[in-house]
Amino acid sequence: MLKRIYLDANAGAPLLAEARDAVVDALERAANASSVHAEGRGARGLVESARTEVAQAVSAQAENVVFTSGATEAAALALTPGISSGAPVRRLYVGATEHPCVLAGGRFPGAAVTRLPVLRSGAIDLAALEAALHGHDQDAGPPFLALMLANNESGVIHPIAEAVRLVKVHGGYIFCDAVQALGRIPVGIGALGVDFLALSAHKIGGPQGAGALVLADGKVCPEPLLAGGGQERRRRSGTENVAAIAGFGVAARLARHHLSSIGRIAALRARLEQELIAVSPEAEIVGMGAERLPNTTLFAVPGIPAETAVIAFDLDGIALSAGSACSSGKVAASHVLEAMGFSADMARAGLRVSLAASTSDADIDGFIVAWRAIHSRMRRSQAA
Amino acid sequence: MLKRIYLDANAGAPLLAEARDAVVDALERAANASSVHAEGRGARGLVESARTEVAQAVSAQAENVVFTSGATEAAALALTPGISSGAPVRRLYVGATEHPCVLAGGRFPGAAVTRLPVLRSGAIDLAALEAALHGHDQDAGPPFLALMLANNESGVIHPIAEAVRLVKVHGGYIFCDAVQALGRIPVGIGALGVDFLALSAHKIGGPQGAGALVLADGKVCPEPLLAGGGQERRRRSGTENVAAIAGFGVAARLARHHLSSIGRIAALRARLEQELIAVSPEAEIVGMGAERLPNTTLFAVPGIPAETAVIAFDLDGIALSAGSACSSGKVAASHVLEAMGFSADMARAGLRVSLAASTSDADIDGFIVAWRAIHSRMRRSQAA
Repeated sequence: MLKRIYLDANAGAPLLAEARDAVVDALERAANASSVHAEGRGARGLVESARTEVAQAVSAQAENVVFTSGATEAAALALTPGISSGAPVRRLYVGATEHPCVLAGGRFPGAAVTRLPVLRSGAIDLAALEAALHGHDQDAGPPFLALMLANNESGVIHPIAEAVRLVKVHGGYIFCDAVQALGRIPVGIGALGVDFLALSAHKIGGPQGAGALVLADGKVCPEPLLAGGGQERRRRSGTENVAAIAGFGVAARLARHHLSSIGRIAALRARLEQELIAVSPEAEIVGMGAERLPNTTLFAVPGIPAETAVIAFDLDGIALSAGSACSSGKVAASHVLEAMGFSADMARAGLRVSLAASTSDADIDGFIVAWRAIHSRMRRSQAA
Repeated sequence: MLKRIYLDANAGAPLLAEARDAVVDALERAANASSVHAEGRGARGLVESARTEVAQAVSAQAENVVFTSGATEAAALALTPGISSGAPVRRLYVGATEHPCVLAGGRFPGAAVTRLPVLRSGAIDLAALEAALHGHDQDAGPPFLALMLANNESGVIHPIAEAVRLVKVHGGYIFCDAVQALGRIPVGIGALGVDFLALSAHKIGGPQGAGALVLADGKVCPEPLLAGGGQERRRRSGTENVAAIAGFGVAARLARHHLSSIGRIAALRARLEQELIAVSPEAEIVGMGAERLPNTTLFAVPGIPAETAVIAFDLDGIALSAGSACSSGKVAASHVLEAMGFSADMARAGLRVSLAASTSDADIDGFIVAWRAIHSRMRRSQAA
């Protein structure tokens, strides 16, 4: 069997060997971290070390890292009318290209969620945000904006600083999904100026089952989504997943190393896109007009549906994805491409290649060889 | 260093070797289970095999198993006014000795949660339940009862069948926390007659980070707590924790074997209690008047605070617990003992010894030797 080529890091980065070892080691010692006995204290130590690592990865205070089961839970925790420090929030603004777990609006009723458009480049429409904030009903409490740092499908980076400035003028809150950004571009909660940051272990080479909501200020905290045992400073109850958290800590530490060598990934991606266009000049690389993550290429070719192409790549030993991987194996039209103004056909043609820290030159070569064959085959079958 | 003796299975059972192997094996292959490619389909296969195992462990349909990050999340998911099949629920009844995550009431506002008393034996007061249901305001929708199968601190088993009968007369729903029961007494969702069953992997020798809400009927389903990607048949979004779920599946399979050899554990527990009383005749074993799990002994000795005793046992190499292990390392008065009518002092004296499938004769011997020394030392210091 051919060695597989994995180019779907944005769906889940390959588990880093160091993170794996930390998970396996912690499994042996994963007692209940709330227990008073030596076993419990050992587990507690692993959790607290990981908390420090995750905090350092985003320049936060360790005590402001709330471990969750993943980023979906972190978003559901953050997106609530009940923020400890202030008046109830009655309106949530979300970018149109947010992850579905953010579009769902957490604990806000559907009618309280307003979608903000993005530009053709994929970046948030700041003028539309400004207009929305201008029209914001102050009786509805402070505005709350959810805007991701970088899009999971396109890699497009939003102008967070400008969005934060606008929202803060109106005394609002900002939730930022930084899941895809960590380890690829600098992420600092203070530098971003956001109130809440969501992270996911398995997108940065850690294990599945751990994520975090990071608070800029411990006093500005969402009402717990999971109440009970009072873990995580009463912010998130439930026995901590010690092994996954330990792996998350290691992956968060390594994310800083990956960031420092991200130039290699950017160069691989540049070559990939150059050769992609050489093979298929009609392909459109999505978000070329915006800043993008250095590891992500989303492209669409008129007349080549993503579903067919993903299966063809898979048969050729290459794992990539049609936009996000969140629904149950179905390839629907991408809400990201639709929001960017692509046609319905093109919104079903998006193919995402996302590189991991371990992606090699040979992986890119393999992708191009496969694409040349798939593209030519599909063009022939279209012509027939 | 002395070999440690771990007698805190109810806080977290030791990870079974077979479950550990399944976790480690799955870590290598834990792609995103929603991905279309071979890696994703492999992960999906692991999740679905585990779903079948967990379903079989409680005689449910696999499609009615909703994987969560743990039992706290399963409770928070189940306890909601919004049940798919019927009118909104406006009142939740909870047993007074439920786990804190159930007492918290999930998505019910605090004022909508009514606590039901337990008898001195620890079992739910069925007359009080009947009276509450009799007085239930039908305009508040159907009644919803949360009653655990077996208590985590005392091991006391509630008369679920009778409670179900009463609730069903009033057209209500029943949520049953079966976390401590699985593998120790028979648990079948149909036989119990409940609508929702919560399970936790790490209480049955699986890894932390996986639990399940099991539905009796797929059409009677709580509104999602985590929305977004649409995983788990849209009942629980978020990338599945493939490795933890795989380990949960193995542990659920082994739970059936453990149940078939539970007589050995029951005999160990009987000896433990006999020798405990021989050493300290003034000790009260909690819940002696009720049916109890065969692995759990909760006892209290007047004048010996649990906090001190737990630390003394720990120094002697024995891990046990003062009631539950859910708060952050603090030993507070046990709400379970308080609800059973114990004095405030006795409610701070509860010591829980909980046996795992791996507990040996030697472990019990070690416990008794340590208890004899600790008891005598504490009595002397009291006398001084």
